[in-house]
Amino acid sequence: MQLASCRATQPSHRLGEAVVTLTDPSGRPLADTDVTVSQTRHAFGFGNIGFDFIDLANGGGTEGDLELAELYTELFNWATLPFYWGRFEPLEGEPDTEGLANTARFLRERGVSLKGHPLVWHTVQPDWLLGKPLDEVERLQRERIRREIADFAGLIDTWDAINEAVIMPVFENGDNAITPLARAKGRIPMIRMAFEEARATNPNATLLINDFDLSSAYECLIEGVLEAGIQIDAIGLQTHMHQGYWGEETMLAMIDRFARYGLPLHLTENSLVSGHLMPAEIVDLNDYRIASWPSTPEGEARQADELARHYRSLVSHPQVASITYWGITDAGAWLGAPIGLVRADGSPKPGYDALHALIKGEWWLPATPVRTDADGRFRLRGFAGDYEVSAGGTSPRSAICLSQQQNHSVHLTMEVEGQAR
Amino acid sequence: MQLASCRATQPSHRLGEAVVTLTDPSGRPLADTDVTVSQTRHAFGFGNIGFDFIDLANGGGTEGDLELAELYTELFNWATLPFYWGRFEPLEGEPDTEGLANTARFLRERGVSLKGHPLVWHTVQPDWLLGKPLDEVERLQRERIRREIADFAGLIDTWDAINEAVIMPVFENGDNAITPLARAKGRIPMIRMAFEEARATNPNATLLINDFDLSSAYECLIEGVLEAGIQIDAIGLQTHMHQGYWGEETMLAMIDRFARYGLPLHLTENSLVSGHLMPAEIVDLNDYRIASWPSTPEGEARQADELARHYRSLVSHPQVASITYWGITDAGAWLGAPIGLVRADGSPKPGYDALHALIKGEWWLPATPVRTDADGRFRLRGFAGDYEVSAGGTSPRSAICLSQQQNHSVHLTMEVEGQAR
Repeated sequence: MQLASCRATQPSHRLGEAVVTLTDPSGRPLADTDVTVSQTRHAFGFGNIGFDFIDLANGGGTEGDLELAELYTELFNWATLPFYWGRFEPLEGEPDTEGLANTARFLRERGVSLKGHPLVWHTVQPDWLLGKPLDEVERLQRERIRREIADFAGLIDTWDAINEAVIMPVFENGDNAITPLARAKGRIPMIRMAFEEARATNPNATLLINDFDLSSAYECLIEGVLEAGIQIDAIGLQTHMHQGYWGEETMLAMIDRFARYGLPLHLTENSLVSGHLMPAEIVDLNDYRIASWPSTPEGEARQADELARHYRSLVSHPQVASITYWGITDAGAWLGAPIGLVRADGSPKPGYDALHALIKGEWWLPATPVRTDADGRFRLRGFAGDYEVSAGGTSPRSAICLSQQQNHSVHLTMEVEGQAR
Repeated sequence: MQLASCRATQPSHRLGEAVVTLTDPSGRPLADTDVTVSQTRHAFGFGNIGFDFIDLANGGGTEGDLELAELYTELFNWATLPFYWGRFEPLEGEPDTEGLANTARFLRERGVSLKGHPLVWHTVQPDWLLGKPLDEVERLQRERIRREIADFAGLIDTWDAINEAVIMPVFENGDNAITPLARAKGRIPMIRMAFEEARATNPNATLLINDFDLSSAYECLIEGVLEAGIQIDAIGLQTHMHQGYWGEETMLAMIDRFARYGLPLHLTENSLVSGHLMPAEIVDLNDYRIASWPSTPEGEARQADELARHYRSLVSHPQVASITYWGITDAGAWLGAPIGLVRADGSPKPGYDALHALIKGEWWLPATPVRTDADGRFRLRGFAGDYEVSAGGTSPRSAICLSQQQNHSVHLTMEVEGQAR
């Protein structure tokens, strides 16, 4: 029996296999038939931020936006969309629901799944919330959760329900209405509020807790949340590395600490600069402000190497379910840092190519010819995800879904052009 | 009405007042009578470790132990006794219950209240526990909690139920049977086990959680514990300062973070060296091993100054209920550090005198003459605690208890020698 296989044999826990039997509509095996099998989608979430496509999706945008979107969708199947309250609803009662819905549809039509980020956070808050009494802030926060979850149900069903709860009640880097609420209620009641409002509005939503504080504090908080009976669907771990790549060993040791709760881990915010590193003494990354932070050839080579190492090590860990990079382009990147995979001029960096060589190369099954045996069978092995089989240029395509560490038997009924009946 | 008052007027929240009316056994006011009022005990817990008196209390000890005990009881009303499992029960089934009970009685007879430390910890573990299956370790741990709580009930009713739970499941500085148990159960179930076993055995016990990790991790853990409905009576905060005094501002900011849970705060482990400071780069204090760490004249002057500042700032915070210093003498001190208040040769350091000037000086009412008014009354103001009134050398003494921020009316019946009936 012939085998169609992606190049990768590792990590084996990411791979699925199937014995595919093709029959014609009358049930007769399609014996000794040349077909083509191709991967169409990764089950693993390879994500990035979708912030750059809001203008384009809403009829605006600038030159190069469409090309950027093509580079994006060629590599990524997952996008984080911005629901920062202060930007989403700068005037009370006037949320940009339509703009975000257009963006969500634009990406969904291109095969990109979506996460909304975040429903509760103390930063990027609307000015109009400041100064209101705490019970009013809480009521508005609860309503805002329900509104976004309801308005986007079916379009966005994954959400960072709450962001950075560890520091939330003791945050001192900007006046806001949420920190006093978190201080008054406590962290766990804040988390309960976020998850319970979201869950009540959309029981099918996948809800994350997300944090940059990866110390024991986050472990302790998660343990408290689980003990309190709050159902969290995945743990979000931010790993912005403007101050340098942490290395595989440190990264995997950190992941191991959070893996023991048995929940999927989403590496929600990854960044690696392709220029000079931010000085190590900066504690809050937001405090580093410089006029220009250029991408350099040496930096781009380093970023490409680190991206490949980082993605390899994360994909190697069985509990990691997604990796979301934090920037497709340097144009407008967070902190002005050259963390993008594409330069401000629209050209892909070596880092883009390095990721492509993994996600759409080593870990991917391109269109591959395979001949069925006398019983109409062939074997398929590849990364968990969606595949399709076609025979001849115009025949309908049939879909196969491979799951991690499973060996399926798949029967497909196909019409093959020119085949004898 | 005459006033008998301690010198301190601050911190006012520590002071209590009473109008004391003295009557003779027939109910007639003891008008215009000279009496003496004296403080006999602080309500605030001024503690230290009682580790040094185990030998003495058990019929052994060396020269100077009795003098050391006298220096101790002159200053401290509170002692922490060591129940480190590995030392308390080095052979399975042979706990040193008698030795510790003798020590507890020795100190109680001298007016010192007691705390047992700790019931659950991952360090100083018995060798015989290693290698047992987890469920057996848990069973033995539960039995050990119940045994110590029961054996010492009435003698020791305050316990560090669990020590250093933040690091417990990820502790890497020594093989032990408790870390794997904590990793398997989680931190909060470990804490629940400690508190619920102890509470079930002695419902009147005062039970603490205690930690050296004063970061957000401890906050998050406490919030999880409270959300889980585990009743903790006080929060223990360790402040070993071998690497230098943190200063009032840092200390009070830290205390404020833990004060918001509304629980009494016990500063359970305080140390300040009277020699050179431990280098700042040492992370686990236990890793610093040197042949000799001498107490120096400059170090002793610095320690005395810092002790006074530290105690003043802690006593100034309304939610701090006790301060336990971590060493009476340099002889046998933890890490060989000169943290004692008494030198290895038995002579008090300036730090001892500095604390004495506060605890038994400024914050204390020594034997003070006061004359009652025509209605047999005088006013008393002082630190919360126990006071006694006597009239003449051989008359019985009557007790008054002052509570913080309260103004009592106290009636005492006294016989006064030589007074006309």
